[in-house]
Amino acid sequence: MTRPGLKRTQKIGLQPGALVHIGEKKRETARITLIDYDEGRFEEREVKDIAELQQYSHAPTFTWINVDGIHQVEIIETIGKFFGVHSLILEDILNTNQRPKIEDHGEYVYIVWKILSYNDATEKIDSEQISIILGSNFIISFLERECAIFDPLKDRLRTNKGHIRKNGVDYLTYSLLDAVVDYYFAILEKLGDRLALLEEELVRAPDKQTLQKILSMKREVLFLRKSIWPLREVINSMEKGGSAIFRKETLIYLRDVYDHTVQIMDTVETFRDVISGMLDIYLSSVSNKLNQIMKILTIITTIFIPLSFIAGIYGMNFRNMPELEWEWGYFSVLIFMGIISLVMIYYFRKKRWI
Amino acid sequence: MTRPGLKRTQKIGLQPGALVHIGEKKRETARITLIDYDEGRFEEREVKDIAELQQYSHAPTFTWINVDGIHQVEIIETIGKFFGVHSLILEDILNTNQRPKIEDHGEYVYIVWKILSYNDATEKIDSEQISIILGSNFIISFLERECAIFDPLKDRLRTNKGHIRKNGVDYLTYSLLDAVVDYYFAILEKLGDRLALLEEELVRAPDKQTLQKILSMKREVLFLRKSIWPLREVINSMEKGGSAIFRKETLIYLRDVYDHTVQIMDTVETFRDVISGMLDIYLSSVSNKLNQIMKILTIITTIFIPLSFIAGIYGMNFRNMPELEWEWGYFSVLIFMGIISLVMIYYFRKKRWI
Amino acid sequence: MTRPGLKRTQKIGLQPGALVHIGEKKRETARITLIDYDEGRFEEREVKDIAELQQYSHAPTFTWINVDGIHQVEIIETIGKFFGVHSLILEDILNTNQRPKIEDHGEYVYIVWKILSYNDATEKIDSEQISIILGSNFIISFLERECAIFDPLKDRLRTNKGHIRKNGVDYLTYSLLDAVVDYYFAILEKLGDRLALLEEELVRAPDKQTLQKILSMKREVLFLRKSIWPLREVINSMEKGGSAIFRKETLIYLRDVYDHTVQIMDTVETFRDVISGMLDIYLSSVSNKLNQIMKILTIITTIFIPLSFIAGIYGMNFRNMPELEWEWGYFSVLIFMGIISLVMIYYFRKKRWI
Amino acid sequence: MTRPGLKRTQKIGLQPGALVHIGEKKRETARITLIDYDEGRFEEREVKDIAELQQYSHAPTFTWINVDGIHQVEIIETIGKFFGVHSLILEDILNTNQRPKIEDHGEYVYIVWKILSYNDATEKIDSEQISIILGSNFIISFLERECAIFDPLKDRLRTNKGHIRKNGVDYLTYSLLDAVVDYYFAILEKLGDRLALLEEELVRAPDKQTLQKILSMKREVLFLRKSIWPLREVINSMEKGGSAIFRKETLIYLRDVYDHTVQIMDTVETFRDVISGMLDIYLSSVSNKLNQIMKILTIITTIFIPLSFIAGIYGMNFRNMPELEWEWGYFSVLIFMGIISLVMIYYFRKKRWI
Amino acid sequence: MTRPGLKRTQKIGLQPGALVHIGEKKRETARITLIDYDEGRFEEREVKDIAELQQYSHAPTFTWINVDGIHQVEIIETIGKFFGVHSLILEDILNTNQRPKIEDHGEYVYIVWKILSYNDATEKIDSEQISIILGSNFIISFLERECAIFDPLKDRLRTNKGHIRKNGVDYLTYSLLDAVVDYYFAILEKLGDRLALLEEELVRAPDKQTLQKILSMKREVLFLRKSIWPLREVINSMEKGGSAIFRKETLIYLRDVYDHTVQIMDTVETFRDVISGMLDIYLSSVSNKLNQIMKILTIITTIFIPLSFIAGIYGMNFRNMPELEWEWGYFSVLIFMGIISLVMIYYFRKKRWI
Repeated sequence: MTRPGLKRTQKIGLQPGALVHIGEKKRETARITLIDYDEGRFEEREVKDIAELQQYSHAPTFTWINVDGIHQVEIIETIGKFFGVHSLILEDILNTNQRPKIEDHGEYVYIVWKILSYNDATEKIDSEQISIILGSNFIISFLERECAIFDPLKDRLRTNKGHIRKNGVDYLTYSLLDAVVDYYFAILEKLGDRLALLEEELVRAPDKQTLQKILSMKREVLFLRKSIWPLREVINSMEKGGSAIFRKETLIYLRDVYDHTVQIMDTVETFRDVISGMLDIYLSSVSNKLNQIMKILTIITTIFIPLSFIAGIYGMNFRNMPELEWEWGYFSVLIFMGIISLVMIYYFRKKRWI
Repeated sequence: MTRPGLKRTQKIGLQPGALVHIGEKKRETARITLIDYDEGRFEEREVKDIAELQQYSHAPTFTWINVDGIHQVEIIETIGKFFGVHSLILEDILNTNQRPKIEDHGEYVYIVWKILSYNDATEKIDSEQISIILGSNFIISFLERECAIFDPLKDRLRTNKGHIRKNGVDYLTYSLLDAVVDYYFAILEKLGDRLALLEEELVRAPDKQTLQKILSMKREVLFLRKSIWPLREVINSMEKGGSAIFRKETLIYLRDVYDHTVQIMDTVETFRDVISGMLDIYLSSVSNKLNQIMKILTIITTIFIPLSFIAGIYGMNFRNMPELEWEWGYFSVLIFMGIISLVMIYYFRKKRWI
Repeated sequence: MTRPGLKRTQKIGLQPGALVHIGEKKRETARITLIDYDEGRFEEREVKDIAELQQYSHAPTFTWINVDGIHQVEIIETIGKFFGVHSLILEDILNTNQRPKIEDHGEYVYIVWKILSYNDATEKIDSEQISIILGSNFIISFLERECAIFDPLKDRLRTNKGHIRKNGVDYLTYSLLDAVVDYYFAILEKLGDRLALLEEELVRAPDKQTLQKILSMKREVLFLRKSIWPLREVINSMEKGGSAIFRKETLIYLRDVYDHTVQIMDTVETFRDVISGMLDIYLSSVSNKLNQIMKILTIITTIFIPLSFIAGIYGMNFRNMPELEWEWGYFSVLIFMGIISLVMIYYFRKKRWI
Repeated sequence: MTRPGLKRTQKIGLQPGALVHIGEKKRETARITLIDYDEGRFEEREVKDIAELQQYSHAPTFTWINVDGIHQVEIIETIGKFFGVHSLILEDILNTNQRPKIEDHGEYVYIVWKILSYNDATEKIDSEQISIILGSNFIISFLERECAIFDPLKDRLRTNKGHIRKNGVDYLTYSLLDAVVDYYFAILEKLGDRLALLEEELVRAPDKQTLQKILSMKREVLFLRKSIWPLREVINSMEKGGSAIFRKETLIYLRDVYDHTVQIMDTVETFRDVISGMLDIYLSSVSNKLNQIMKILTIITTIFIPLSFIAGIYGMNFRNMPELEWEWGYFSVLIFMGIISLVMIYYFRKKRWI
Repeated sequence: MTRPGLKRTQKIGLQPGALVHIGEKKRETARITLIDYDEGRFEEREVKDIAELQQYSHAPTFTWINVDGIHQVEIIETIGKFFGVHSLILEDILNTNQRPKIEDHGEYVYIVWKILSYNDATEKIDSEQISIILGSNFIISFLERECAIFDPLKDRLRTNKGHIRKNGVDYLTYSLLDAVVDYYFAILEKLGDRLALLEEELVRAPDKQTLQKILSMKREVLFLRKSIWPLREVINSMEKGGSAIFRKETLIYLRDVYDHTVQIMDTVETFRDVISGMLDIYLSSVSNKLNQIMKILTIITTIFIPLSFIAGIYGMNFRNMPELEWEWGYFSVLIFMGIISLVMIYYFRKKRWI
């Protein structure tokens, strides 16, 4: 998390719009799939020759072109040329460090956001970038690698379930967003479970690892917050109807997904409060421990030091020490020591130290 | 509180508007009651056959349909069909994790908020969701289970007390809101009582539980805050007169309930300040305790260690130790030790340690 | 402070506008005084029969009706009827937990704020509520009990000093506000004096009480802040000229009293900074104390433990311990011990511990 | 700083506009100087008879009347009458506790702000108030006492350097502001120097005084911040061209001085960050010290307590203790003790405690 | 960092627009280079005689005049005269303490911002100021010294790569900005690397230096934040199209560099969170250390003090102590001591202290 994937230094000195892939290469070669549909028709296939795509830029049907793998600059460039996309946007698509944003270019809208998923192995949130070029009857999506998250959506397209094939590509864009935001809820549930476990651990047996865990939870939650905050703004500006590409019927759906992001932010804020309360408890438990150790130390010292002193007194070698000669001197001293200890223990009990 | 009731994962992959109940099932079967009234007329009955409701969507009288229990999807769906409610709203009604919000759909307004009540057993705030579909002459309310909170209101309807039967369904909506907000005040009183008790405990005898209690109070207060904050916005946007459904005469009443939410927020903020001050006192009392323990330890050590050292000196076995032979050596040493202790005790008194 | 005077639960279930007195009853019976004046005329008397008031609602002269004691619901109700005041406002007048606010009802303006005064006995700020109904030529003020704060103002009315009798009831309202805000300055001076004393105590001799005092100061300052903040908004919205009842000549005076509230907020913020700095000093002084105790403990231990060990060595009973037989063995050991102590003391001086 | 010069209680009960001087009396008698100039002409003299001033209220030349000393109410009153100034403004001029503000009264503008200077003796920032009445061709400035800060400006007027005599009284107002803001930079440099010294002291040898110094620095910086923040707003509202008195040519200069205040705020914020970092270092150094003391204590205890125990063993008086009879028993024990100490010292070195 | 390069005191008393160089002198003499170009033409040379520049103020070609070294007041003054630049702007150019800002003067725009670079030697961010006067067909840039950062840009101009020669001086301004912002990313990478190292050090072996390092990192990050925040505003106001000098084609590029600054701010905020988490871990590790030391101290004390007490008992010299006479007394006591230690060690193990 400390180095949020910048690695832009290779771009220093290049002209703007120069196409360079920035980020991790997650697939060997890019895969392009095409879904062409309208209410009555559905065609789905993998595209081998990129030149086939040109015809779809002004086709009357709805076209969804999906590119998995964005490190092959020439593919992005060709698609950009076919659909008339500005080179700065192509540059952005190639850079996986984008912040969620929306740019309205009249003919088309460029939207970029993050697909998040919870990685059970590393206990971290994985992040992947999705870029979308949305025209009036086509949508081109760019992913870093294939992603199972949109499979149910494709099934609904195939089976014509709901109004999805009737509703055009702006509704499809909403559906993509909605699928991603639903996953955010899944992450929240996972984080919530971990938080509950951590809370229990904190109360039962906090150790050195606990603070690390709390702080790592905090970091995950902050990461989530940073990913969702700009997305909320993006959806808000879509919903406010700035672009002609989003039809009025779709806006109510965008409003719905906007409400979901607000709800997620609410939960995230609750998590932050919980975590900050856990930190307070942790710190307090550390200082309680110190207090208890100090109490034990003090009790031991306070009981034995006076007794040892008395023993020391009668260990002195003065010739004239009358007590030493007494028949019951030794036993009297032992009893006297016993009484002192009992008084002290009584005193500590009264002070509620034992 | 750590897992704020999400459980949405079952919805992943479903199309938008798909009706699924999300939340705890609080009743066995839903109960539908109908109140049909105008200034002169009042009819109240339980609805067994849901088809009866259809006629009320355009009746000239005021109609209040109340549904207790929202887990039966088909009931919600049928009512939605009768009154022309958008499927996304039906989806929201079924999901009990909504944030308070208002949506104006022209023909009708959808409002959702939380009924809070203080649970004396668990010492927590219970939350229940109420959804309202408000048309120009009907109001449909959806509750998770029956709720005694609205009984006085129903009495006023029955007995035609005040102007309630004359004033239409927007005024009835206000009355529902007002009843709920009045309960918020009751919660504040309960929390205030607990805070006062906790404050006393803190000053008298703070223990390990105290911090837990303070932090749990803090959480309840934050929860209250999070429930009321969006409600305030909702009432504000109702009062600003965005919708034609709220008549001008009703706005002044909404203003009144808005003022109440502002007052509640004020009190909540005061509670937060009080709690944060209590945390300061708690932490300071913990460190004061440590200081006191250290003082006792230091006093004991400082008094006895030099004395023990002196005893150790005269416990040495050197042949030539003239003091040992003195007639009054032993008693002189005892007196000397006594003087040392007195000087030290005087010193500590001067330092205000004892 | 923990229970900010809610006690609204008795209202649960009542219809809106139901008149119930909420708050402490501070007088036995209400007292109504009437001042009727214009530039040439001045009449002041106590009103025994409430019916007399009716004629003043449309009198050409300026009328100031003042009601001390608001628990007699029927008086408020009758006055409300005479002057055409909405029942929700009467409800607000009866509730002493209002937040400062202004409501413009066209014919009249309703303003409510707090009269604060510093109680030297409890060292707390006392708060009383004043409600005002301001028409174009009448002003009705409701107080919880009689209040000497407005006596100089009444004198000015009686003696026609300044332009007060010429300037109408909106100017009179300003004068009431101004008198109250002047008292806020007096409270600030009192708090400032206490802060200065507390600061001195903190530097000289902080004890367990000091933290309590600092936190109680903090609470008073926060209370002041919460009372003045909304008042500032109220005056601002009066000054911005929303209502026709405030004439243009009066606005400049309102601007002046607005500036005063800004100045008060500034001082309050300064007090908060000072208090937060005092908390820092307190906490640091606590930990300094701990450090000093630890130093003393360590010095004692470090000096005497090695010496005691040496004494212990020569207290052993081995048969063959040559040093014990030496003529000057005892004195050599004493000198050796002296040297060790001196070296240690020198070391501690160098470390700046003593 | 705790009592930010209120002393307004003497005003309680007076009518608004009543002229009372509030603040410290810094001069014996007021001194009035007059500078009358236009591009070709320059006259400068002290005014003995206040009646002379009347003619300048509508003179065609530019007139700057400066009053040093504002406690003589009758002077302020007379000038107010001559130039038609509202009595509330005269009241404000007499009160040295004003917050920087600007009031546009059409015919003239009233501006008040603070002249700050760093007092090397007290190490505090001194504050003086300047009030300005700016008409279309006259400017009247009121100072608490004479102030060398404007001498270079007067020289420029005398020698007609730059465009100052051509540019009218609004430009002169800007020049006064600019001179004051330049002094703010001087204060920042002084504070910066002190901060650097304090930082060094903090790293080298922090003692009890250091915290006091840091907190006092913090207070000065906050004081500066509070004085400049409203001034920035004042200049901003001048520059936004609200008043007809500021000509378009002058606005660019106001923009320049506005930029300076922004720069000052930036530096002040940097200072705040530095100070907050210093507090962190201070607290950490305090707890580091405690840790080191504890380490020494623990090392001494850990090394000598086992050794003393061994010595204690052989100090016992049992008849049958074979070791005591051994020829080399004593020396073996000494060697054994030496080995134990070495092992422990080695252990502590490994733990990096020594 | 404590003294953010003010040194303005030499300006006190000067008229506005007086040209004085404020800042460090980084070059001996200024160097002026001229690049004159349009799509077909390219000329680049060093200017020896400043008078040559006059002709370029209204030349039809695009002209870029670059001045390295700004301490020679007469050069800045002459250029200002040739191109009609306001004296206040010349004053700003000479002062290297500017905050990033943009000023639109109709005929030309004045922009100033900071070139940042990471100094590996001092581990600090170096800052240099660049001022730009941008007319419709000329651009004059002022740098404190020559800067390699723009070399790739000049190469692109020479070789006519991309559209840079076609796109005019507003696009050139964008290119300068873009080059600088790309360097900001490089700084982020450096800081990210250092943060990662520091995090590792913190977990493995934190020492006294670690806190200093963390706080110095924090200061660098805050410095970065303060430099970029106003730059973002500057670019935003350029992009919002306030000035006629920026053509519509250029705005999309400015939008792109604006997005970059937003991304940088995001990363900076992430760094701040990471650093604040590191502070928490550091403080917790310090208090954990203290706890461990206390545990060891307590264990040693708790084990040996009772044992020493027993040894003390049998070191007493009472005549009648039967145990001393027993054959196996000594060995019994040793065994008894052994049992006590074992019990205690078992107890500490159970408490998880060892």
